[in-house]
Amino acid sequence: MAYKYVYSFGGGKTDGHGGLRELLGGKGANLAEMAKLGLPVPAGFTITTEVCTAYYKNELVFPSSLKKEVKLALARVEKVMGCHFGDPKNPLLVSCRSGARISMPGMMDTVLNIGLNDETVKGLIAKTNNPRFAYDSYRRFISMYGDVVLGVAAESEKAKSPYEHIIDQLKENKGYESDTDLDADDLKELVRSFKSLIKKTLGVPFPEDPQDQLWGAIAAVFNSWTIERAKAYRQQYGIPEDWGTAVNVQAMVFGNKGQTSATGVAFSRDPSTGENYFYGEYLTNAQGEDVVAGVRTPRPINRSKDLPDGVDTTLEEEFPVAYNELNFIRNRLENHYRDMQDIEFTIEEGKLWMLQCRNGKRTAKAALKIAVDLVKEKKLDQEDAILRVEPEQLNQLFFPVFNEDDLKYKNRKIIAKGLPASPGTCFGKVVFSASEAETQSDEGVILVRLETSPEDIKGMFAAKGILTARGGMTSHAAVVARGIGRTCVAGANITVDYDRGFFKTAKGEIIKAGDFISLDGTKGEVILGAFHSTKLGLTDDYHVFMKWVDKARTLRVRTNADTPQDAKAARIRGAEGIGLCRTEHMFFQSDRIDHIRAMILASDAKGRKKALNSLLPMQRDDFYQIFKAMDGYPVTIRTLDPPLHEFLPKTEKEITALAKKFSLSLEAVNDRISTLHEQNPMLGLRGCRLGIIYPEITRMQAAAIFEAVVKAVEEGYKVAPEIMIPLVGHEKEFVLQKSIVDEVAQEVLSKIKAKVKYLVGTMIELPRACLEADKIANAKADFFSFGTNDLTQTTYGLSRDDAGTFLHYYLERGIWEKDPFVSIDQQGMGQLIEIGVEKGRSVNKKLKIGICGEHGGEPNSVAFCFKHDFDYVSCSPHRVPLARLAAAQAAIIANKAPQEAKKAVKIDEPKAKASPKTKAAPKAKPAAKAKAKIGRRATKRPKAVSTVNPAALKAVEKILNAQKLTKKKNPKGPNHDD
Amino acid sequence: MAYKYVYSFGGGKTDGHGGLRELLGGKGANLAEMAKLGLPVPAGFTITTEVCTAYYKNELVFPSSLKKEVKLALARVEKVMGCHFGDPKNPLLVSCRSGARISMPGMMDTVLNIGLNDETVKGLIAKTNNPRFAYDSYRRFISMYGDVVLGVAAESEKAKSPYEHIIDQLKENKGYESDTDLDADDLKELVRSFKSLIKKTLGVPFPEDPQDQLWGAIAAVFNSWTIERAKAYRQQYGIPEDWGTAVNVQAMVFGNKGQTSATGVAFSRDPSTGENYFYGEYLTNAQGEDVVAGVRTPRPINRSKDLPDGVDTTLEEEFPVAYNELNFIRNRLENHYRDMQDIEFTIEEGKLWMLQCRNGKRTAKAALKIAVDLVKEKKLDQEDAILRVEPEQLNQLFFPVFNEDDLKYKNRKIIAKGLPASPGTCFGKVVFSASEAETQSDEGVILVRLETSPEDIKGMFAAKGILTARGGMTSHAAVVARGIGRTCVAGANITVDYDRGFFKTAKGEIIKAGDFISLDGTKGEVILGAFHSTKLGLTDDYHVFMKWVDKARTLRVRTNADTPQDAKAARIRGAEGIGLCRTEHMFFQSDRIDHIRAMILASDAKGRKKALNSLLPMQRDDFYQIFKAMDGYPVTIRTLDPPLHEFLPKTEKEITALAKKFSLSLEAVNDRISTLHEQNPMLGLRGCRLGIIYPEITRMQAAAIFEAVVKAVEEGYKVAPEIMIPLVGHEKEFVLQKSIVDEVAQEVLSKIKAKVKYLVGTMIELPRACLEADKIANAKADFFSFGTNDLTQTTYGLSRDDAGTFLHYYLERGIWEKDPFVSIDQQGMGQLIEIGVEKGRSVNKKLKIGICGEHGGEPNSVAFCFKHDFDYVSCSPHRVPLARLAAAQAAIIANKAPQEAKKAVKIDEPKAKASPKTKAAPKAKPAAKAKAKIGRRATKRPKAVSTVNPAALKAVEKILNAQKLTKKKNPKGPNHDD
Repeated sequence: MAYKYVYSFGGGKTDGHGGLRELLGGKGANLAEMAKLGLPVPAGFTITTEVCTAYYKNELVFPSSLKKEVKLALARVEKVMGCHFGDPKNPLLVSCRSGARISMPGMMDTVLNIGLNDETVKGLIAKTNNPRFAYDSYRRFISMYGDVVLGVAAESEKAKSPYEHIIDQLKENKGYESDTDLDADDLKELVRSFKSLIKKTLGVPFPEDPQDQLWGAIAAVFNSWTIERAKAYRQQYGIPEDWGTAVNVQAMVFGNKGQTSATGVAFSRDPSTGENYFYGEYLTNAQGEDVVAGVRTPRPINRSKDLPDGVDTTLEEEFPVAYNELNFIRNRLENHYRDMQDIEFTIEEGKLWMLQCRNGKRTAKAALKIAVDLVKEKKLDQEDAILRVEPEQLNQLFFPVFNEDDLKYKNRKIIAKGLPASPGTCFGKVVFSASEAETQSDEGVILVRLETSPEDIKGMFAAKGILTARGGMTSHAAVVARGIGRTCVAGANITVDYDRGFFKTAKGEIIKAGDFISLDGTKGEVILGAFHSTKLGLTDDYHVFMKWVDKARTLRVRTNADTPQDAKAARIRGAEGIGLCRTEHMFFQSDRIDHIRAMILASDAKGRKKALNSLLPMQRDDFYQIFKAMDGYPVTIRTLDPPLHEFLPKTEKEITALAKKFSLSLEAVNDRISTLHEQNPMLGLRGCRLGIIYPEITRMQAAAIFEAVVKAVEEGYKVAPEIMIPLVGHEKEFVLQKSIVDEVAQEVLSKIKAKVKYLVGTMIELPRACLEADKIANAKADFFSFGTNDLTQTTYGLSRDDAGTFLHYYLERGIWEKDPFVSIDQQGMGQLIEIGVEKGRSVNKKLKIGICGEHGGEPNSVAFCFKHDFDYVSCSPHRVPLARLAAAQAAIIANKAPQEAKKAVKIDEPKAKASPKTKAAPKAKPAAKAKAKIGRRATKRPKAVSTVNPAALKAVEKILNAQKLTKKKNPKGPNHDD
Repeated sequence: MAYKYVYSFGGGKTDGHGGLRELLGGKGANLAEMAKLGLPVPAGFTITTEVCTAYYKNELVFPSSLKKEVKLALARVEKVMGCHFGDPKNPLLVSCRSGARISMPGMMDTVLNIGLNDETVKGLIAKTNNPRFAYDSYRRFISMYGDVVLGVAAESEKAKSPYEHIIDQLKENKGYESDTDLDADDLKELVRSFKSLIKKTLGVPFPEDPQDQLWGAIAAVFNSWTIERAKAYRQQYGIPEDWGTAVNVQAMVFGNKGQTSATGVAFSRDPSTGENYFYGEYLTNAQGEDVVAGVRTPRPINRSKDLPDGVDTTLEEEFPVAYNELNFIRNRLENHYRDMQDIEFTIEEGKLWMLQCRNGKRTAKAALKIAVDLVKEKKLDQEDAILRVEPEQLNQLFFPVFNEDDLKYKNRKIIAKGLPASPGTCFGKVVFSASEAETQSDEGVILVRLETSPEDIKGMFAAKGILTARGGMTSHAAVVARGIGRTCVAGANITVDYDRGFFKTAKGEIIKAGDFISLDGTKGEVILGAFHSTKLGLTDDYHVFMKWVDKARTLRVRTNADTPQDAKAARIRGAEGIGLCRTEHMFFQSDRIDHIRAMILASDAKGRKKALNSLLPMQRDDFYQIFKAMDGYPVTIRTLDPPLHEFLPKTEKEITALAKKFSLSLEAVNDRISTLHEQNPMLGLRGCRLGIIYPEITRMQAAAIFEAVVKAVEEGYKVAPEIMIPLVGHEKEFVLQKSIVDEVAQEVLSKIKAKVKYLVGTMIELPRACLEADKIANAKADFFSFGTNDLTQTTYGLSRDDAGTFLHYYLERGIWEKDPFVSIDQQGMGQLIEIGVEKGRSVNKKLKIGICGEHGGEPNSVAFCFKHDFDYVSCSPHRVPLARLAAAQAAIIANKAPQEAKKAVKIDEPKAKASPKTKAAPKAKPAAKAKAKIGRRATKRPKAVSTVNPAALKAVEKILNAQKLTKKKNPKGPNHDD
């Protein structure tokens, strides 16, 4: 039985349609869809992505029936276009282009003008009566084919190609200034030179047979799926390797047949601002690559905006008929796809041809404007509008960014990479100590440290940015920088030499104190030199859009906030409570660190209690401020978590100072530090273990919380405290800590009449906690908050602080598809979370479940949490808006999924059964079965969703896998959400 | 409906039997069994363990129907014994004793002579015509009751009791030398004094009502279930808190009614040597406590051995009739229980009474002899004999031990506790450096270090024992000490001050260089002063017994051996292969450490390869020697696992020396050390991550292995290499490393004609590996070896090296029942192992599964592995014999379980339904349901097993929970066991 590997389009008979993106790729599906809409698409056919998969599985051999199918499809093209491939008199020329499911612009190869040789070029001349055009096409074909298919190319990406060298030589010889000076003979001469270059380089002549040319091009495009830049791109955007690309073979039309021909690119709205006018550029007498290449300056298609200097005409004026048709098509397409379209067109001797259309890329600002406008224009409902915006884009609105279009920036020298510890961008002079940062702050400085400590706080305030060689996303530097709004790159691969005042990059470059560097805290880049930043800011569209988002979503979004300042910032961004308040971060402040140190150095419980008593009023006031800021929204406060030695100084000088301050012998302090030293602090005396060994700590913190509650309630505020016990691995740990909290609550709250409801719950951040979640729930835990940072660390046996040495390598080699600290490892760790949720809810159906790891603000992870019926996600204040958006998208997709899936089944199911994938896995081992299952589900992807953004598209796939698409509560108003 | 809470025994009508140990406790079940056998047991009744459980659940209130049942049972005792409780003329006196399922000798309370008061004492005088005896009983009763029930007791365990003070005072006043000088009036005087002391102390008089006395005593015994020493004992022996104790109330008989009365303790065989003669001691005119208290020296019961000095008669001579009856009973009991019995008896005015019998405690040597002899005597089959010996006991045979009977040792001062890192005992002078250890080795030294490093090796050889303040069971010190056979206590709670030449204990004691300390590496104790050790050695019985063990077991036992010496030692102890050869331990040797350091300091792959090439021949030779030692048995070699910085020096001095040696700048070396520094090395660049980042390391190790294979095969040895990839978390890691191993194997093995079968498998030591075990198995892993050390660390988020600071506290508070690093956490981590096994075998039914963590030699963990159908366990060489025994016991119990369970059902099931436990958990929550299920299973425990040792008993419980009691292969002969 033969599979259908080839889908024809154009000329009134089209096999495919826009819903077959998986099979035909984005370009192929859109061409089919345009053809179906009756738009003037040059005829062609698409070789499916299944061929790509089979090709790679079968050691680069095509399925046997493909040849025959291509032959038949090509015959159809010949019939529609009225010419013949390889016909010396009336030749058909074709292009061969890649087309993956998701656009990977410029990543894969393209070959144009296939079918030209020394014979057919004569036919082309005869047909067009335009020898210059014919030879121009021919020489373009040879250089492109030579480059892409035969590999006779420039030595590096930036070097000139050997073909350009030949052209330059000829122009120099002839004294020409521009390519347009080249006449037909010159171009014919170039054809000869190019061919001889290729023969000389390869030892074999350039292929003259059009069939050879075509198959060479098809193979080259499939091969380009796995070239380095394509792989890198897929990795960056999380596109699976096994999706493969389709190949589109299409009749050539020519924008370079003289002054009646043109070619251009247009957007149905302005992709920078989102304004609703027809935006585009074109070149007369040119092929598409000329527009992109930037050799000639293209002209605007109309006068909607002022013309640039030196431009005096537009497409509308030069080709009024074609322009009107194009403008009509623009509206047709936008109405059809209900999204801003990116259109490629060519006018051949006055006739308009549509080459491509797809959803246009856009800035965050434009994305919001377009979404809001389309709804206003009633072209889109709010839910679909929400699916049009990528969550990650929202980041652009809140933090300074470097100018991506700046050429200097494009050529920037990244001297080190680290963790994106605190977002934003900045530049400044390098200093190596907090005191220098303070004294030189007027000049704008970047504080560079091995790691920071509480001693450095003032210097961190004084600096514009902070760069550290050690530490992870939750290191002191990262936490403080996010708290005080400084850009920070942490754990960068540099070595710092304080004594000699420089740091050294992995490549051995020396950066001295006083040198300028720039930091990109959103990306984790350290850049040589000074780059200025801009900040976009919020628009009205943002506010309108986010209102819709909040209406659509069911998952609540909280924030991780450690200070009243954080809490306020997060409220402004729409946080509906605090999911994690790390009390210890309050201790890092300089007026408190002494007290916590006094507690650590105390020799007995009495001494500890005394020191804790000094901390109590400070913590109480912080909590009071936070309760006020969150007026009525739940505030989750975690009891002390980090190992105590994190609060102690590290250098001899600091230790000596500390001993003096506390009138202790240096020996005593060193003894204590040595006792507290741990080989693996992450796995040591921390979390609830501290509160169990030193119950007075938990007692003090509980007292501070409930005394703050009393104060806030007495002043008329609503409060909803949720006390969270960290690092619980055994239910008895929780029981012991909860009993202290309850006891203190009873003592303190008895002083007021008002009844205050408070919850006591636990972080689920150890594999054992997931496995024993039923027992923990049974011990009367009111809520679970998945601490996915630590859970990732223990599930993988991987320290976030130390992973830097090999994480990049693992991602580059594809061992891990994604950084598990960025996006929840749904496949592995996801199982533990699933076990935890199931077991917890098996005991208590109403168990409130949230997440407070860094993953809480990552769209795929948010979708995962939605799927597993979480009540809320909690993330850094700056990620709150995008978590809201991701939550809304997950809810919308889940709502759509059942009926959409139903529709899709009718179209795709028969094919899925006959697909070569299914055939390629004959052994019905469990794992193979599971794969087959996923494959089946994937084919059920709904049609309409194929026009949404890539992130949302991926989300659909995941949501469709959800076994239970259950009810969700409505997140309205403050107070406890259960 | 009323439960049966009270079981009567004696006088021809007995409710219980020996199979009801759970309900009646060990003592109660045995008394019932003895009564059923027709032996002369004083009548009495047992209040069941269910009452204990209900009592604690119900806030120390007894079930309401208990009073009535006790009344009825007491009436039966009165009838049988022909006297009445509280009858002033013919009083019945009773004892009240605890009795848990498993004997907890001396841990709980006992009250004797209940029923005496100022009235009944007169009846006792009249009845016995012996006022001295009566008042002696009365004063004993008051002091015991005052102490145990009323809490009028000595201030500390070592202090004299207030009653003894009063006696001493009286004796001084009267000028008496011994207690026997006290006459009836003196004793009457004591009764008065004791009572007045109690009234003065408590403010209320001593209870005169016998019913009050009885209920006070019953409550006191139940209360003693939860006193500190009982809790500590249970924790040490892993006895669950909720088992509870039974209480036995029994008619008193008196060995102190004058010269025709006596009391004694006997063993049916010698408990020290196991020799088959009637062994025991007795005292004339005494109560049982006198024998135990050691105030008077007891006499032997017969002349089987020479009499001690000053002893001139025996029970056999003094009480020939009673002795003959006792000797008859001895044989009756041994035949009945088929085990050596520990018997308590009393002769009251010539009549023999049996007070107790139970399986006797014994030394390892005796345990083996008794087991072997009983089989020879055809009293026992081999399988039951195997169940009679506790695996842990075997340790006594292999390593020196301190003399437990030495009074000085009993009063030893434990100055610090640490991990039992390398077994054995020793003493020596403290030194603080390896060089001192070398120069002073003649004197016998203990090397004390913060932690050891490869620089210390010679000093470690020179020392008798090693004590470190940091590091866990797999630290350098522990690993090397085990390898070279030195006693080691690691990670002890001491602080070491090298500069001033002392270490300090947690209590602040200073131990200086030159001071004597003793180490117990089996227990992890550091003891002040010098204690000599003895070594038992192996007996013929051992060899006979272990042959039976090997016949009975199905689970294979391998060893963790890193050197040819280890391998040989393990073979001698019966290891059937190597389950873990940690190649890096070879690197710690002084001739190799330089090469590995050269590799680490190399700046590129070329430099690394050069250094690795120098290591290759050394590793090859080691492997060759190991293959030879294991001739044909499988040898599992793990590729490099620890983070590289473990191989680098730590002190400035050593670093400077290293830089000089390698002609590198100090800066360069420090740079490298700083780059390799990790916050949490356990979670860092180690395991297969090393082999992935530096494939040349894996390549070298694979080459060394297969070149050794070639050499061994060419010399005619059989080899079965199994290459193990550590720390795999993602199947792709395994694929990458396996491909290197396979490639090298092909290269090297192609040189010989013989076909060598080798396996490539992986450690399963990360939660993610368990969760994704199907994918890893699918990636063609030939075997899984559960690395339960690391798996425990990651499942708990707990560093073994750092847990010392709070682990003791957690165990003492009962937060954890057992140290999870010692015995597999079956409840929590067990789930991950189960998932791993199930998923792995779902892909490959024949997947070979083993364990190579420290747990592999712990009996409960061995039973767990058996239950989960492992192919083998692997443990330290010295634990191989006990793992063999534990494996045999697990297999025997599993075989017995089905039919035994069937039998048991008939007897117990109706009761289980009506048990108060079931009633006490009315909510059918999942967790409660699970508990109920366990309860049900527990009641099905087979009857016969109630006579085996405690460890085996616990194992039954676990095995009965096994859902699949499937087939097991027979472990015969060498070569791959699949």
